[in-house]
Amino acid sequence: MKRSALLDQIKKKQSFLCVGLDVDLEKIPPFLQTVEDPLFEFSKAIVEATAPYAVAFKPNIAFFEAYGAQGWASLEKLITFINQHYPELFTIADAKRGDIGNTASRYAKAFFETLGFDAVTVAPYMGRDAVEPFLAFPNKHTILLGLTSNPSAAEFQLAEVAGKPLYEKVLLQSQQWNNASQLMYVVGATKPEGLKKIRSLLPDAFFLVPGVGAQGGSLAAVAEAGLNADCGLLVNSSRGILYASQGEQFAQASADQAKALQQEMAHYLSNFKKG
Amino acid sequence: MKRSALLDQIKKKQSFLCVGLDVDLEKIPPFLQTVEDPLFEFSKAIVEATAPYAVAFKPNIAFFEAYGAQGWASLEKLITFINQHYPELFTIADAKRGDIGNTASRYAKAFFETLGFDAVTVAPYMGRDAVEPFLAFPNKHTILLGLTSNPSAAEFQLAEVAGKPLYEKVLLQSQQWNNASQLMYVVGATKPEGLKKIRSLLPDAFFLVPGVGAQGGSLAAVAEAGLNADCGLLVNSSRGILYASQGEQFAQASADQAKALQQEMAHYLSNFKKG
Repeated sequence: MKRSALLDQIKKKQSFLCVGLDVDLEKIPPFLQTVEDPLFEFSKAIVEATAPYAVAFKPNIAFFEAYGAQGWASLEKLITFINQHYPELFTIADAKRGDIGNTASRYAKAFFETLGFDAVTVAPYMGRDAVEPFLAFPNKHTILLGLTSNPSAAEFQLAEVAGKPLYEKVLLQSQQWNNASQLMYVVGATKPEGLKKIRSLLPDAFFLVPGVGAQGGSLAAVAEAGLNADCGLLVNSSRGILYASQGEQFAQASADQAKALQQEMAHYLSNFKKG
Repeated sequence: MKRSALLDQIKKKQSFLCVGLDVDLEKIPPFLQTVEDPLFEFSKAIVEATAPYAVAFKPNIAFFEAYGAQGWASLEKLITFINQHYPELFTIADAKRGDIGNTASRYAKAFFETLGFDAVTVAPYMGRDAVEPFLAFPNKHTILLGLTSNPSAAEFQLAEVAGKPLYEKVLLQSQQWNNASQLMYVVGATKPEGLKKIRSLLPDAFFLVPGVGAQGGSLAAVAEAGLNADCGLLVNSSRGILYASQGEQFAQASADQAKALQQEMAHYLSNFKKG
């Protein structure tokens, strides 16, 4: 998907919501736990219910992979369903892969070609060799880990390199790589001052922001710190949407949660344009 | 597998060879490209031929994942075959996963329980949160990326943090994590002086060393810099063994390559004990 198609969708839906599909089979409604492919059926129901309010969906690959080849079959079914019925949605494989050269090319092939995702999350530790093979795919997007939202992110990401935190080096250096215009970044939302600083470093980049809601970040603070003229944000919500209800009407409850976030986002988008 | 079982096998086979299964379907013998499951059949033949000379096998997950659920099915078949027929082998999923908390637990479950590997490679960028969930599995081993062997490893791994390269911080800090005794490390072999230094930092740890052979490292230099009283090394070879021949006798050619490495290793092991 071209970046312009993502922007069109953000404008049309007045939303920068990404729904994270971290499907925990122990948390889905009990009546769905016994169907043939609960990972797929639950995810499908969430996509159908929340697609009007979200621009992106982000399956967390670990939650499928935990079930081995069977989980991967559910993942294939899900991405095929989304691409067939909702081709306008921006799809992100939250895979956090990272390996060199021809191995990286295989991971890129897996997510961009075999499965058909628009984007994949990638780890930076091994440097440009591990990322450029992803960037070689036209109209596909590589979302590099910048500053993550977990407590131990500080351990290495905030380590001081030449007077600055390591994650800043990752952000700025990666902009020099081939096809860097296809890079986006994971930027955690637990500290909005961090997001503000990162926005000043990369005024035009798209940020995928986890950590709003269950992890404690505030959407208002994220919007204020992170929006740019192109929106520039995809804010992820997983648990708050997925497990809104355990009843037969769970999908409606999820839709209500997604709609509430979308309406708040519409407000920030219009404020931002006026401001 | 307990560490002691790995040590017993090293002693018995007089080998610290790890065979990397980076199976490129375009490079395997043509007559095998048309069988029903070439990924599995080729890997199985390599395992059978080289098991007498190797203590560990390391499927590169990307090369299976590139084929989606079908590739994962081949991977399951392969690890099941190895665990059934060669339970003494140390099996490493070269997956380089890295994500936080409950996501990391899912990846650990995938490789340690669903598939039944003894070890998995993991990336450090997100800190201890992303690694301890792997370390929570008893008698399983987490092989953390320390210093990798690719050219751009220098980009972030050698970034100077408080006067030392980042990878040193990763190595030393990770030793403070819970169940750190189940940690091993990926240490590239392209610069033996780096390996020597890392051995002085972590005298007792096991290192998985890629980069010997096709990537240019010398086995003699690696052995000299890296062996410790418990051996402490697993040296990986992939292409040199896998693609030794394109003919019908390819497995014998692979066995010959593995045997040559094993004999060289036996020499270093005996020298080391005398010295």
